[in-house]
Amino acid sequence: MDADQFRIAGKHLIDYIADYIESLRTRPVLPDVKPGYINDVVPSEAPEDGEPWIDMFNDIEEVVMKGMTHWHSPNFHAYFPTANSYPAICGDMLSGALSCIGFTWNAAPSCTELEMKMMDWFAQMLGLPDHFCFGSGKGGGGVIQSTASESTLIAMLCSRCEVLQDRGVDHKVEDEAKYDILSRLVAYTSCQSHSSVEKASLLSATRLRMIASNEQMGMDVNALRSQILVDRNHGLIPFIVIATLGTTNTCAFDDLQSIGILCKEEGIWLHVDAAYAGSAFVCPEYRHYMNGIEHVDSFSVNPHKWLLVNFDCNAFWVRDKHLIEDAFNVNPVYLKHENEGKIPDYRHWQIPLGRRFRSLKMWFVFRSYGVKGLQDHIRKQIKLAHLFGELLESDTRFEIVDEIRMGLVCFRLKGNNELNENLIKRINRSRNIFLTPTKVNDRFIIRFAVCARTCNEEDIRFAWSVVQKYANIVLTEMNGNDCTAT
Amino acid sequence: MDADQFRIAGKHLIDYIADYIESLRTRPVLPDVKPGYINDVVPSEAPEDGEPWIDMFNDIEEVVMKGMTHWHSPNFHAYFPTANSYPAICGDMLSGALSCIGFTWNAAPSCTELEMKMMDWFAQMLGLPDHFCFGSGKGGGGVIQSTASESTLIAMLCSRCEVLQDRGVDHKVEDEAKYDILSRLVAYTSCQSHSSVEKASLLSATRLRMIASNEQMGMDVNALRSQILVDRNHGLIPFIVIATLGTTNTCAFDDLQSIGILCKEEGIWLHVDAAYAGSAFVCPEYRHYMNGIEHVDSFSVNPHKWLLVNFDCNAFWVRDKHLIEDAFNVNPVYLKHENEGKIPDYRHWQIPLGRRFRSLKMWFVFRSYGVKGLQDHIRKQIKLAHLFGELLESDTRFEIVDEIRMGLVCFRLKGNNELNENLIKRINRSRNIFLTPTKVNDRFIIRFAVCARTCNEEDIRFAWSVVQKYANIVLTEMNGNDCTAT
Repeated sequence: MDADQFRIAGKHLIDYIADYIESLRTRPVLPDVKPGYINDVVPSEAPEDGEPWIDMFNDIEEVVMKGMTHWHSPNFHAYFPTANSYPAICGDMLSGALSCIGFTWNAAPSCTELEMKMMDWFAQMLGLPDHFCFGSGKGGGGVIQSTASESTLIAMLCSRCEVLQDRGVDHKVEDEAKYDILSRLVAYTSCQSHSSVEKASLLSATRLRMIASNEQMGMDVNALRSQILVDRNHGLIPFIVIATLGTTNTCAFDDLQSIGILCKEEGIWLHVDAAYAGSAFVCPEYRHYMNGIEHVDSFSVNPHKWLLVNFDCNAFWVRDKHLIEDAFNVNPVYLKHENEGKIPDYRHWQIPLGRRFRSLKMWFVFRSYGVKGLQDHIRKQIKLAHLFGELLESDTRFEIVDEIRMGLVCFRLKGNNELNENLIKRINRSRNIFLTPTKVNDRFIIRFAVCARTCNEEDIRFAWSVVQKYANIVLTEMNGNDCTAT
Repeated sequence: MDADQFRIAGKHLIDYIADYIESLRTRPVLPDVKPGYINDVVPSEAPEDGEPWIDMFNDIEEVVMKGMTHWHSPNFHAYFPTANSYPAICGDMLSGALSCIGFTWNAAPSCTELEMKMMDWFAQMLGLPDHFCFGSGKGGGGVIQSTASESTLIAMLCSRCEVLQDRGVDHKVEDEAKYDILSRLVAYTSCQSHSSVEKASLLSATRLRMIASNEQMGMDVNALRSQILVDRNHGLIPFIVIATLGTTNTCAFDDLQSIGILCKEEGIWLHVDAAYAGSAFVCPEYRHYMNGIEHVDSFSVNPHKWLLVNFDCNAFWVRDKHLIEDAFNVNPVYLKHENEGKIPDYRHWQIPLGRRFRSLKMWFVFRSYGVKGLQDHIRKQIKLAHLFGELLESDTRFEIVDEIRMGLVCFRLKGNNELNENLIKRINRSRNIFLTPTKVNDRFIIRFAVCARTCNEEDIRFAWSVVQKYANIVLTEMNGNDCTAT
């Protein structure tokens, strides 16, 4: 494909993309394929000779769409949203054209500097303390990571490095004192936190305590305090608490104020995973959920979830940038440059060396929507969640689990788990809407997330009609005909 | 930006991208900015109201290009190449439109299945043993990671998990036996290997031995054998060897055959980092460099470096997929699905949970170029490196360090390090071409890599003219006028 062919193919694809996104309502949200379907539609070997664009283009429907779960269908209410917007796609296109690798400032100054600027913009938009902004000169700053999982792992590695430094042990040398400390490190999180915290602890080989949650599914701070004491008494070293603002299970919020004060007293790193709900802080009325933010050492939110910046774009801020640079610093000659030390080299801020120019899509999205446009998006989706909640409340066969927070509604049919497992299975098999479940305290719960940017009131009412239809069916099957009326 | 505005903006951008890539020869390869330049061209806060596309478009030159190092300029000869091609950009555009998160099969079946198929295609294209292919049913398979750094870290984590399993220790429990083993693990690599190996060892908190290299800068296998013996005698546990095919310093190759036999005898995991040079194995005439591949447990190559698939796209294969699944498996209810176990859930194969549909760009590139087109690309770039070598050999003031391997030429002016440091500084300050240095055995060496897809003979001759021009200047300054003639 040469430049002229690209002009044709690329524009062809632009129209296809717009057509696809605008007509998503007409496609079943879930595909009808079995594992291995691709063997029937893709040959087992690459072609020897090049093929024209039109052949590949024609296979998009046959191969890709045939097995696609349409995350941006207005009928997709599973997991949490993942972002998609036109300006973000434009940003990624430009990033692809440049395809620079911004591991050092020198390797692509605009890649580093625009990222610093966007992380400062974003911190201000969320109302974060100014010590997280480069611009404040207070020692902190932000960086784009791929995912919240990586941010959690990186926070653990930073804190681990700090604990070693505090005890006079160089984390780069191989001595017994180091391995002794490493074997005694304990991380803390709520039993409601995301599986990525367990994964990060597994990877960093540190101990992890899953602290019980309270009635609102926030971390039980007294239980946390007691566990820290128990662990200290056993000669272990509490080194990090991972708090969550907006859990995946039920969008619960940990009490950052109380946890933060405790962490300060105990000298423990406090990392906050606000992957989903953090984006809502662009609206001042939701910032009370992060009361206590001044105690936080590192903070992570995914604009690639709820703020219209396409994946991957996890925003990670750290209060003291020297700690992250110390934890990751390896410095070969082939990466040295004249301006070292004057400005961050982001390779020291992440696990990989290479990195794309991801701030372009933040820049395009933030400017295209403006702060007001992003606030409108968040407020609209929360309103739609409450509409779904009202519909649920109008039908006494259902119960809402806990309260509705942000764009997530957790609900269930009154009755046992099997009934609800059956309900969600039937709903998803219909391919009309897509929901995912969770389990809290052994109760099987159905999650309804407002996801697609284009989701509107009619889509919510449609989803509700699907839920009711299959509720009628499963209740009829289970109990006879007496439960179908509302 | 709505759909209609996107149709206009996107097509506008397609033309801009084609114009940019085709006219790169006319831009200085390096920018003329100082750290902090962005403060003058980007406001310190996000706009309250949305802006029209044209405002953002106009800022591309003013903000982004002003500070850009043009990695795809034919005058870029620094680091190693990073891939860029039109079909890859199209693949990424489609990925952006779908923006599915393929963490489980269920979450987007085509995302998982096309990736499996592309990894099988690619393994066959490289001539890898069939046990790395899903299709062989022999237990191995491949996955796209972001970078070679992550693949190295993941190989370490898999091997660590296997060592624990072999000793009857569950890597998920917190007992003293586990921490004792972890504190005794030792990884081995050559002193020539990439800094990411040191970083992976730092992150996984394992010991690392940098084994001396031989005259060709390959790992000294006798030194490796001796070190393993010494470590075993000290009660340590050798657990992984990271071999390199094509080092960053000088594109040196470790002797995989000898290292492989040793690892087999010793029962040590062998991981191969072939980030750059691995792509050359699409040409059968270079496969002798991977003799011994049958002994390898995991293998990593970056089509995003040398095979025209835009970043990020690191290909990672593992011989036994159960080990990678064991090392990473955490399994909350909200990610469970009906088809578990029938097909890989790639979230168990990587550090992050989320993942983009990256195989689309492999699919488009492999089909657009065909195997023959990719072979042509590799062969052409190697030929250009040899042309640069011939030019160097025609000038007795220069020496080529070691031999020319793949698309990399390592050279220096005969004389001391300072002279060569001065030379490369002058060259890069001219912004005509961009080179990066390295140091091997305390000798400062200049690396000349053939990078851009569009680089041709004239570009090589131009680069040579720039090198000669500044060689004349620095030699004149240092020695008087008697060294300027060749």
